[in-house]
Amino acid sequence: MPLRVDVNCDMGESLGVYRLGNDEEAVRHITSSNVACGFHASDPTVMEKTVSLCKRHGVMVGAHPGYPDILAFGRRFMDVSQEELINYVVYQVGALQGFLNIAGLPLQHVKLHGALYHHLVTEEALFLKVVTAVRKAFGNVIFLTLSSEKATGLKKRCRQEGIRLALEAFPDRQYGDEGGLLARTMENSVIRDRISIAERAVEMVMKGGIESVNGRWLAMDIDTICIHGDNMESVDAARRLRERAGEEGIEVAPLNTFI
Amino acid sequence: MPLRVDVNCDMGESLGVYRLGNDEEAVRHITSSNVACGFHASDPTVMEKTVSLCKRHGVMVGAHPGYPDILAFGRRFMDVSQEELINYVVYQVGALQGFLNIAGLPLQHVKLHGALYHHLVTEEALFLKVVTAVRKAFGNVIFLTLSSEKATGLKKRCRQEGIRLALEAFPDRQYGDEGGLLARTMENSVIRDRISIAERAVEMVMKGGIESVNGRWLAMDIDTICIHGDNMESVDAARRLRERAGEEGIEVAPLNTFI
Amino acid sequence: MPLRVDVNCDMGESLGVYRLGNDEEAVRHITSSNVACGFHASDPTVMEKTVSLCKRHGVMVGAHPGYPDILAFGRRFMDVSQEELINYVVYQVGALQGFLNIAGLPLQHVKLHGALYHHLVTEEALFLKVVTAVRKAFGNVIFLTLSSEKATGLKKRCRQEGIRLALEAFPDRQYGDEGGLLARTMENSVIRDRISIAERAVEMVMKGGIESVNGRWLAMDIDTICIHGDNMESVDAARRLRERAGEEGIEVAPLNTFI
Amino acid sequence: MPLRVDVNCDMGESLGVYRLGNDEEAVRHITSSNVACGFHASDPTVMEKTVSLCKRHGVMVGAHPGYPDILAFGRRFMDVSQEELINYVVYQVGALQGFLNIAGLPLQHVKLHGALYHHLVTEEALFLKVVTAVRKAFGNVIFLTLSSEKATGLKKRCRQEGIRLALEAFPDRQYGDEGGLLARTMENSVIRDRISIAERAVEMVMKGGIESVNGRWLAMDIDTICIHGDNMESVDAARRLRERAGEEGIEVAPLNTFI
Repeated sequence: MPLRVDVNCDMGESLGVYRLGNDEEAVRHITSSNVACGFHASDPTVMEKTVSLCKRHGVMVGAHPGYPDILAFGRRFMDVSQEELINYVVYQVGALQGFLNIAGLPLQHVKLHGALYHHLVTEEALFLKVVTAVRKAFGNVIFLTLSSEKATGLKKRCRQEGIRLALEAFPDRQYGDEGGLLARTMENSVIRDRISIAERAVEMVMKGGIESVNGRWLAMDIDTICIHGDNMESVDAARRLRERAGEEGIEVAPLNTFI
Repeated sequence: MPLRVDVNCDMGESLGVYRLGNDEEAVRHITSSNVACGFHASDPTVMEKTVSLCKRHGVMVGAHPGYPDILAFGRRFMDVSQEELINYVVYQVGALQGFLNIAGLPLQHVKLHGALYHHLVTEEALFLKVVTAVRKAFGNVIFLTLSSEKATGLKKRCRQEGIRLALEAFPDRQYGDEGGLLARTMENSVIRDRISIAERAVEMVMKGGIESVNGRWLAMDIDTICIHGDNMESVDAARRLRERAGEEGIEVAPLNTFI
Repeated sequence: MPLRVDVNCDMGESLGVYRLGNDEEAVRHITSSNVACGFHASDPTVMEKTVSLCKRHGVMVGAHPGYPDILAFGRRFMDVSQEELINYVVYQVGALQGFLNIAGLPLQHVKLHGALYHHLVTEEALFLKVVTAVRKAFGNVIFLTLSSEKATGLKKRCRQEGIRLALEAFPDRQYGDEGGLLARTMENSVIRDRISIAERAVEMVMKGGIESVNGRWLAMDIDTICIHGDNMESVDAARRLRERAGEEGIEVAPLNTFI
Repeated sequence: MPLRVDVNCDMGESLGVYRLGNDEEAVRHITSSNVACGFHASDPTVMEKTVSLCKRHGVMVGAHPGYPDILAFGRRFMDVSQEELINYVVYQVGALQGFLNIAGLPLQHVKLHGALYHHLVTEEALFLKVVTAVRKAFGNVIFLTLSSEKATGLKKRCRQEGIRLALEAFPDRQYGDEGGLLARTMENSVIRDRISIAERAVEMVMKGGIESVNGRWLAMDIDTICIHGDNMESVDAARRLRERAGEEGIEVAPLNTFI
C-alpha cells in the first residue's frame, strides 16, 4: 500500500476589515481546510467566502471551533464547563454547515482550535464527549487530534466503535520527549525554514515518527500534516512539501478518502 | 374547512446568568417556538436547553435570527449590507440546526427578530433573497412575516414558487391605518390586558382582520398569532387564547401542518 | 475605638434588556458599591444609571472589573497574560471614571470580580502589579481583597508603602480550614437565611474572625462585609445586618473614612 | 500670522492577533493621533502600546470612539438612542484616559469614528450633546468635525461658549458640491497618489478651501488634515505633506497649540 497523507491548513481567520493568513495561496497546496467559525476568529461573510474558495480549489472543508475569545484568538485556556464546551462546539460546527450546504459541500472533519485543541489532547474523556455530540448532530465526520503513541491507541479504540479519528503532525514544531509540542514561546520551538519543514514532513510520513528535541524517537501514526498559511514562507513550505511527497511516492489526498 | 391557526412565541432569550422570559410556562400554550440564536440574545447552552424544552412539550422549533447587537437586544436598525445580512442569517440558523439534529427535531420555520424583522417587512426584495439563501441551505422551511394586505399578495406569489410563507398577527399591539404596528413607544400601542389580548386574537382569526387604532378595517390572512412570554400576564393571555379558540372551534396547530 | 466596618455590594450588573440584581433596594443598606464595567456584565448606560443611583443614596462607588466573558459572567478562569490583565483592569476602571466625573463622585475603590478576584487572591505578586498600575492611572484608590491571616500581613506591608488595602469577609459563605471560601457548588457552602447571615457578619466583626466549616478558628482583619443584591433575601440580610450593627455599637461607614 | 495646521491620523486599530495600519511609520509624520477605544477596533493592550508609541514620538493623543461593531469596523450606521450614544462615548474616552494617565499624557481631543462621525456631522444638536457630556467628564478637550461652510459657523458659536472645535479636511477624498465627502464606493472618490494628496492638502490650507468634484469652490476653515496610515502610500503622502508644508511656510503643530 502506498504511503498516503492529507495536508491541512487553518483558513478563514480574517474578521471584518482584518485580514489574516494567505488563504488564496495556501488553498493551492492543501487537501483539507479547517475553517474558523466566529468564536476565536472569522465572521459569517469570511466563512461564506472561505467555503467558496475551498470549493473552487477542490479542497475538503472541516469546522475549526475554538474558545469564545476574539481578544486572544482562542489561544488561551478558558475554564469552560463540559456542558458549555460541547454546546460551543455544536453551535460553531452548525454555523458552518449552512454555508457548506449552500456550496453543496460535505462537512469532512472537525479540528478544534488553539488552546481548546491542546486542552482536549490531555482530556481524552471530554474529547470523546465532544466527538459523540458532534457525531449525533452532524453524522460520522472525521475528528483530528495530535498524533502520539497514546493517540494511536485511542484511534484504534475509536475505529472499533466506528469513530473516525485522524492523527495530525506538525513539521514546523519541535516535539518534547513526551510527544507534546514545545511551547511557541520556547526558543527554537518553531521551525521557520521552508526546506526544513518540508523535509521533516516527508520524514515523519515515511518513517512513521520523528525525533524529539532531545533525540528521543517518537513513533507516530500520521494521517495529516498541518501547515500554516500565515506568511509566504509557510505557503512555500506547503508547496515544497507537495513536490517532495511526489518525488517520494507519497500520495497526498483528503482525509475522507482513507479515514 | 375549520379555522386553523398556529400560536408562536419567542423563546430562549436568556444569556449566561441572565434570565429572560418565562419559557417553562409559555411553552405549554404554544405550537411554534422562535429560538434566539446568539446574535441579539441567547448562548449555545440556552439554545440546547430551549430545544430540549420544546421537544418535551411537542412544540415545533424555528430559528429566530437577529442583528449582532446584544447591547440592544437586536431592537435597533443596523445598516448591514445585503451580503452580510444573508450570511448572518445563514450562520444563525445553522448554529441552531446542530441542536435540533441532536434532539431529533426538524427545523420548522425561520422568523427574523426585532429591527431585522421590521426592516425586511419593508424590503421585500431583500427579504426574498434571505428566504432563497435559507432554503438553499436548510431546505423548504417556512418563513414568517407580518400579515397585511400586501403580505397576502406576497404569500400567493411565494406559493406559486413553492416558498412557504406564514403570515403573523400581533393581538397585543395596535395597528396603524396602513397596517403596520404602532411603535411600542406610543401611548396605548401595547395592549396588556390578557382578556383583551385573547379576544383580539380570536376576533382576528374569525373575522380575517382587525380594526386599526383609528377604526379602519385591515383585512389579514392570519396563519399564526404571536404571543409574548415575558411575564405571567402574557402567558395568561396565551392560556386564555387557547381556551377561547377551543370554544370557538378554531383549531390550534403548528405551521407545518397547514403551510 | 469603636468597631467600624464598611458594607459593600456588587451593583450595575444588568446588561441591555437583561435585569440582574435588586440595586434600588440594595443601595439603601450599603456604604460602598462595586460597579461592573462591561467586561463580565453591564453596559455604558447601566454604568451611568448605577453611578447616579449611588450618588442619590450617598453610597461610595468603586470599579468592579472582570474577565472579558459575558457568556459566563466572569466566573470562570481565563489564562490571561500579566500584561493583558493589567490593561484589562486599567481599561475598565477608566471606563467607569468618566461617569464618576460627570456625577462629581470620586473613585473610592477597585474590587476585582469573580474568577479574576479569586485568581489574584492566590497570585499576590500579580495582584500587586495590578494595584500599582491602577494607582499610577487613578491615584491612591483602595483595593479590596479576601480577608485571611495571610492578607493581614499583606495589608501591613501595603500600608508601609502607602497602598490602601481593605480586607473583605463574606458572611453568607462557609470558609474552609485554610481560610478560603468553599466552592458555591459544594453543599451548604452558601448560607441563605438572612438572620444567620446578619449574625455571622456581626460575629465576624466583633470577634475578628469566624470558624471554618470544620470548626477551626480563622482570625481575620475585617474592613468590609460583602453582601449580595440578587434577591430580596440577600437585601433583607443587609437590612438586618445594619440593624444588628447598630445594636452592637458597630459603626457602618464607607471605606474611605478609615482605610 | 503664519499658516498653521495639525496633521492627524487614526491609530491603534489592531485587535488581538490582527494587525491594521502602519502606526510605527505614520506616527513619525503627524502631530495628533486618534486612538481607537475598543468598540469598533482595538483592545486594551493595543491602546496601551499606541499611547506609548505616541509618547515616544511626541505626538498628541485623542480618543477615537465608534459604534460597538467590530464586525464592520464601525463603518455602518446603527440607530443608537441619544442617551446610549452619549454613554458609549463617555465609556470609550474614559477607557483611554487610564492609559494616558499612566503615560503622563493629556487627552488632547476626541474624534468620533466612521459612521458615527458622519452621522453626527448631520446631527448638530446631538453632536453638541456629546460634546457637552465629554467636557463634563473630561474637561475642555478639543472636538474634531468635518470642515465645511456650516461647520465654520458652528465653530464660531462654539468658541463663544468656550467649546474648542477643530475643523478637519480630507485631502485624499473628493468632495461633493454640498461640501460632503463622496462615498468611498463611488469611482475616483478616493485619491491614492501621494503627490496629489500632499498637493491638495497644501492647497486646502493655503487657499482656505478646495474645489468640489464638479469644480464648485468650497470655502473651508481648516485646523487639521486627516491622513490615513493603512499603507505605505498613505504614509508617504504624510511625509510628502510635511515637506511641502515646510517649503510653503506652513507651520505644522498639534491642535492644542492653537485651538
